[in-house]
Amino acid sequence: MTEHTPSRYTENVQTHLLSVQHLLDKYALLEREVLPQNMSQAERHALVNTLIHQQDLADLREHLGGLHSADIAYILEALPIEQRILVWDQVKADRDGEILIEVSDAVRESLIATMSGEELRDAAGQLDTDEIADLAPDLPQAVMHQVFTSLSVEEREQLRAAMSYAEGTVGALMDFDMVSIREDVTLEVVSRYLRRFDELPDHTDQLFVVDREEVFKGVLPLNRLVVNEPEMLVSQLMVTDTIKLHPDDKAEQAAQAFERYDLVSAPVLDEHGKLVGRMTVNTVVDYIRAESESDVLSLAGLSGEEDIFASVWKSFQNRWVWLALNLCTAFFATKVIGSFENTIEKLAALAALMPIVAGIAGNSANQTATIIVRALGVGQISPSNARRLIGKELAIAGFNGLIWGGVAGLFAYYLYQNPLLGVILTGAMLLNLLLGAAVGLLIPFTLQRMGRDPAIGSSVLLTAITDSGGFFIFLGLAAIFLVG
Amino acid sequence: MTEHTPSRYTENVQTHLLSVQHLLDKYALLEREVLPQNMSQAERHALVNTLIHQQDLADLREHLGGLHSADIAYILEALPIEQRILVWDQVKADRDGEILIEVSDAVRESLIATMSGEELRDAAGQLDTDEIADLAPDLPQAVMHQVFTSLSVEEREQLRAAMSYAEGTVGALMDFDMVSIREDVTLEVVSRYLRRFDELPDHTDQLFVVDREEVFKGVLPLNRLVVNEPEMLVSQLMVTDTIKLHPDDKAEQAAQAFERYDLVSAPVLDEHGKLVGRMTVNTVVDYIRAESESDVLSLAGLSGEEDIFASVWKSFQNRWVWLALNLCTAFFATKVIGSFENTIEKLAALAALMPIVAGIAGNSANQTATIIVRALGVGQISPSNARRLIGKELAIAGFNGLIWGGVAGLFAYYLYQNPLLGVILTGAMLLNLLLGAAVGLLIPFTLQRMGRDPAIGSSVLLTAITDSGGFFIFLGLAAIFLVG
Repeated sequence: MTEHTPSRYTENVQTHLLSVQHLLDKYALLEREVLPQNMSQAERHALVNTLIHQQDLADLREHLGGLHSADIAYILEALPIEQRILVWDQVKADRDGEILIEVSDAVRESLIATMSGEELRDAAGQLDTDEIADLAPDLPQAVMHQVFTSLSVEEREQLRAAMSYAEGTVGALMDFDMVSIREDVTLEVVSRYLRRFDELPDHTDQLFVVDREEVFKGVLPLNRLVVNEPEMLVSQLMVTDTIKLHPDDKAEQAAQAFERYDLVSAPVLDEHGKLVGRMTVNTVVDYIRAESESDVLSLAGLSGEEDIFASVWKSFQNRWVWLALNLCTAFFATKVIGSFENTIEKLAALAALMPIVAGIAGNSANQTATIIVRALGVGQISPSNARRLIGKELAIAGFNGLIWGGVAGLFAYYLYQNPLLGVILTGAMLLNLLLGAAVGLLIPFTLQRMGRDPAIGSSVLLTAITDSGGFFIFLGLAAIFLVG
Repeated sequence: MTEHTPSRYTENVQTHLLSVQHLLDKYALLEREVLPQNMSQAERHALVNTLIHQQDLADLREHLGGLHSADIAYILEALPIEQRILVWDQVKADRDGEILIEVSDAVRESLIATMSGEELRDAAGQLDTDEIADLAPDLPQAVMHQVFTSLSVEEREQLRAAMSYAEGTVGALMDFDMVSIREDVTLEVVSRYLRRFDELPDHTDQLFVVDREEVFKGVLPLNRLVVNEPEMLVSQLMVTDTIKLHPDDKAEQAAQAFERYDLVSAPVLDEHGKLVGRMTVNTVVDYIRAESESDVLSLAGLSGEEDIFASVWKSFQNRWVWLALNLCTAFFATKVIGSFENTIEKLAALAALMPIVAGIAGNSANQTATIIVRALGVGQISPSNARRLIGKELAIAGFNGLIWGGVAGLFAYYLYQNPLLGVILTGAMLLNLLLGAAVGLLIPFTLQRMGRDPAIGSSVLLTAITDSGGFFIFLGLAAIFLVG
């Protein structure tokens, strides 16, 4: 539980970032301009640390001390690696754990790399078991072992459980901070029980009602606790018909339930109906944000979140797969065009016009695929409406093909004064847009049926087909009717 | 406040959708196969309504009666238009308002189109003022006038306020369901006050402490209310250093604050520090989801959310701008290539290889732009780190240019046995990737500086430049060193 002041919000965080950067810039100036250039990196750092105005570091420490852990995480993410480590060293050790949980995976890696085994163990020791599970993949095995042995039997069980669930499941996102009560007591008794707490876990909007075997019976919303008379029984007021999650449920579906039913927390039950954890809305918010970012990143062909100050080599590793894949599809397109070289030599205008055929169909196919992926994502496509959707998408592609194909045909006619060239361009665009729509429908459906995420990988295949297909259709038609 | 049972969650919603579709399919079967084909649409509908097994409609009504409004909204979105309206007619009128709030904008429009002025007025009458404000743009002016006159003076003031704030601000997302208390009373008094409520507003995790002039003093978390002794004063326990929002704040920044500080609700204050509303986490979840969807849609060139069963014409309106824009940039590329027609006639291999130069640079530039847009979005780029980022992105582009340009050069050499052609291809790819990186940096920075959303419109300009630029560089180098 942090007791630090949250800064008002983003605008203020940015002000904090600027102050920190200002302090760091003084340091860098000293290092860059005052010191002889031929010293080794380590010597320079050491010298700077003795030379530097100690006041600046003290200022920095004081400034950081007043910030919320989430704000420090934000600042760390916005700093280049050496500055990041300098700031990290000034953060009080007792907040290391919290901050490591807040920063992005990529930045966490860079921070952990600077920490000793002992520091890591202390940091993990400050965390709840579900948080330790999040950190675990980044910790050295020896550290994890030490952390594990320092836990109570119950906590070990929780940690083992939290680590056993696959990413993207409710089990991986749940926490264990539940307050549970019995149904046969009065609100008065519940109130007295609660007053024994110093504070309730964050996001406690309801108490979980369980029996002696920890079997879940229902929930008592705090709202009902506070508006009802103390003599009433929990069993009279508890809500039994409520959302129940299971550790193996997909996180995405749980997130949709939170969204749909406006939940703050929900119980997680095992196969015997026992209460094993809870999921809270803050986790859901983080999950939705992370998923949406990963969608946008994967659309651009980035394998994962990137520390903006990662080395060129690290960034390259995050990006190369996409470029290599696209290069392969471009080679294929080259082979297609290459087989029409005779045709192109006779009429170079074809080379100038062919990118139009490929490009517009690619854009239109991408629109279709995006609509379908979105509808599949929320489960709105069923056998009974799929045929309708397919018909509609093909109709739109045909309509777009006639309109934009027509415009492009007129453009070609105007440019080259060759009416047949215009007609062939229009026909090729119409056919290629239809091909694109068919593929834009087929690929997401097929990926879905294969149990893969239809949002990932659709676009590279789509573009490959509308590119090569477009070149083939246009040059093929031209070879038959125009040049051949 | 709905008292309907929420279905367990998505898997169940989909089961409900299937049951509804099953009932509807019976209806359609009747209509399609039993009735003579030469009747008019209206005659057939009328006849079906008398012929149809009334039991089916009763089943449907009963089934819908047991569902949460959010689940009915989901089902309505997944149904083609006639089925959607049939289902909508079976929904109890007293839930119309709630469901209209839940459905997507596009589907809401299709439902409102079937409702009379009176039905709309009744539906709006069931809603809170902040919800009426959400519905207002879709309601006929006469209906809005009637709704307005039916409100109390205080509610009119709230509605006027809610409608006055621009989309994307805190004011447009806030609600007015706050419970406020005074600081000079004991928890005992607060508890007695709360027991006068039948139930507290959803997402009441804290009570707002105000003075006689409604000036905000702090918050009393319900958690503190329940764990502390009844004799304590609100002033002893209230939290004064808390997030305060203002109606003109950007919704995105408020959402980031909710995310960062794990909030459930936050007070909204006017310029005099008076409490005017509150923002809750469910609104934030909806906002984040809607923003992320609109990002994905706009990346694919869709102007807005699309009802998947919208008419071809409506869908066309949602998609044409993007295709037209891309057609213009394709025309430009055509002119660029066209000016090298002599060169291409002499060596048609250039036409086959040129898409490689354009494509890979486009992909790489898009990766750069995505990273920059993301970093700008969270405000992590400042003058002091921008130069570093620029250097890094150019270095990655250069590195990628050498590697993939080299691979492509070898491919060209292997295909055409012309070493100079390979070298020119490598050089052109290197230059075009660098151009792409420069543009991928420049466009988001420029859009940001112009006060525009850097996520929108970057990609079309980017592709235009890497396409035309790639053709120009590659064909230009070839014209100078190879063919000319």
